[in-house]
Amino acid sequence: MILEIACVEIAPDRHAEFEAAVERAVAEVLSQSPGFLGITVLRGIESPEAYQLHISWETLEDHTIGFRESERFADWRAIIGGFFIAPPAVAHWSIP
Amino acid sequence: MILEIACVEIAPDRHAEFEAAVERAVAEVLSQSPGFLGITVLRGIESPEAYQLHISWETLEDHTIGFRESERFADWRAIIGGFFIAPPAVAHWSIP
Repeated sequence: MILEIACVEIAPDRHAEFEAAVERAVAEVLSQSPGFLGITVLRGIESPEAYQLHISWETLEDHTIGFRESERFADWRAIIGGFFIAPPAVAHWSIP
Repeated sequence: MILEIACVEIAPDRHAEFEAAVERAVAEVLSQSPGFLGITVLRGIESPEAYQLHISWETLEDHTIGFRESERFADWRAIIGGFFIAPPAVAHWSIP
């Protein structure tokens, strides 16, 4: 299992709309991607515009190849990309 | 429930030693702190020196006051602080 952490910034007046869009994008797109294990959406306490998406994948390649190089990635970004006020920062983490 | 995310950097030749120290610090110190719910240790895939500690607390104050302002914080840092090669960055996250 690896964890993808995507750090995004969302304008404060669009939080509810963004959270609903993520829910829809997970149901319609992400959950259909092989190796997808789960997602937790987190909102910054000190930084009100900051969100983190913690997305679990069976393997790194399930995300970087299976998802990122598929049409699903475009579908996913089409639903949630418009809410970003800065380019997302994405990194991957393993449990030692 | 809130999530504390602590980003730390550890010299590559001390990873195993650091991970063992965290395990000991959790058992001896963190798990004794009221409101502590759990911890996941993560290691960076793109950034080999980067670790994240994801620590769940019942409330923000369980961390910022109950833990940080107690002697347990000094005990915790005494066990793991010596491994940090840069000051840790800590932020708190809620699940909307």
